[in-house]
Amino acid sequence: MNLVVDIGNTQVKAAVFELHKLIEHFVFEEEQFSKKIQQILQEREINQCILSSVRENNTKIVDQLSKIPRFIQLNSTTPVPFQNLYSTPKTLGIDRIALVAGAIGEFPNQNVLVIDAGTCITYDFLNSKSEYLGGAISPGITVRYRSLHDYTSKLPQLTINEEFNLIGDSTSGAIHSGIINGVIQEIEGVINQYQAKYQDLTVVLTGGDTKFLSKQLKNSIFANQNFLLHGLNQILTFNNKE
Amino acid sequence: MNLVVDIGNTQVKAAVFELHKLIEHFVFEEEQFSKKIQQILQEREINQCILSSVRENNTKIVDQLSKIPRFIQLNSTTPVPFQNLYSTPKTLGIDRIALVAGAIGEFPNQNVLVIDAGTCITYDFLNSKSEYLGGAISPGITVRYRSLHDYTSKLPQLTINEEFNLIGDSTSGAIHSGIINGVIQEIEGVINQYQAKYQDLTVVLTGGDTKFLSKQLKNSIFANQNFLLHGLNQILTFNNKE
Repeated sequence: MNLVVDIGNTQVKAAVFELHKLIEHFVFEEEQFSKKIQQILQEREINQCILSSVRENNTKIVDQLSKIPRFIQLNSTTPVPFQNLYSTPKTLGIDRIALVAGAIGEFPNQNVLVIDAGTCITYDFLNSKSEYLGGAISPGITVRYRSLHDYTSKLPQLTINEEFNLIGDSTSGAIHSGIINGVIQEIEGVINQYQAKYQDLTVVLTGGDTKFLSKQLKNSIFANQNFLLHGLNQILTFNNKE
Repeated sequence: MNLVVDIGNTQVKAAVFELHKLIEHFVFEEEQFSKKIQQILQEREINQCILSSVRENNTKIVDQLSKIPRFIQLNSTTPVPFQNLYSTPKTLGIDRIALVAGAIGEFPNQNVLVIDAGTCITYDFLNSKSEYLGGAISPGITVRYRSLHDYTSKLPQLTINEEFNLIGDSTSGAIHSGIINGVIQEIEGVINQYQAKYQDLTVVLTGGDTKFLSKQLKNSIFANQNFLLHGLNQILTFNNKE
């Protein structure tokens, strides 16, 4: 079985795959890492593993995972099942590499836009010739709430509110409209721009805000909160096949 | 002549009006305040003045401006030439009060959406019955660039770039696309939502990012970087008429 581990800006996600099927998945804080991984390794027969981390220093984590027979730490030079046309591949976030690998695995030979709504909102485009062309990065919902409070003198710190009106009639109502409706308008606008340029576009929505946003978007999308984990498994399988 | 002064999050704006005509306007740092105002008072015959400030403490500034015969400091209880239907009028930013007064002055008896693209992007809606209904507040362009760097572990601090592609093929290209194109999609989407709800909508774009954004927007808008100053003059005239 395969173990895939994703260390993000706020939490750790891990999943166990049998070939391409996700058997079980976990979300936990980084402090629990050692204990959680130990549990998984005791319960499952893991023979290959891939790690994706946005952190600089992963020594302890790598030490523990290296005990698994075939272990890969994803970086900008890891072979991937698509052609990377990014002009600065060394600075391409490895989470975005994993998302594009997920697109190739789930929707081969299609034009795919992957939108990851988490700390940041990332947009990544893979064309039907398996070429990754790049995309965009904008602030995520939580970052927008924090920034309004931190960088102005009078606005309150609010958290995501599922109910909002176009015309907010109070300061908090106006902030919820500006952020939530603003993000929805941004995402729908960007999808429409890609659709105007690329026929038969498949749109995937993933990341922490998937559930909330997928209810709000008018465009037809595939919502999958674990898309990045599928992509990591895709890269792991691709490398161990060679 | 009228002197209007607007102290914002990042700078001070001032203007001299003769009735409703803007004669001269100034932009400067808060440290230069005393000197600049003294110059204006020496050169022009100012007999009324209004101050709008987002800061908490304005004692020195108020002391200096109080020497002008008729002086008003704008706050949430100042009489205004429109009906305020905000449910929390005491927390309505006075800059937004001034923008709505500008809408009443320039476009009376119309449905007007005022978009102020500065530190924040504020949306304010006044209907054709001179009723202010509220709006929205989202992070401005500069705030979005700062937040991507400050709240993530690996993204660089960039500044506004007038050239961007939908598909950014480098980290900086992706950030410019995410922020600039994202803001444009947000603004166009919100304008379309108001247009669908209110016929014959007039849209005004103002604030520090007006010049840049007005070139990019497809919707028909009135761009006026000094709209808030016109609104302050409107409130000043309204109060001294009574």
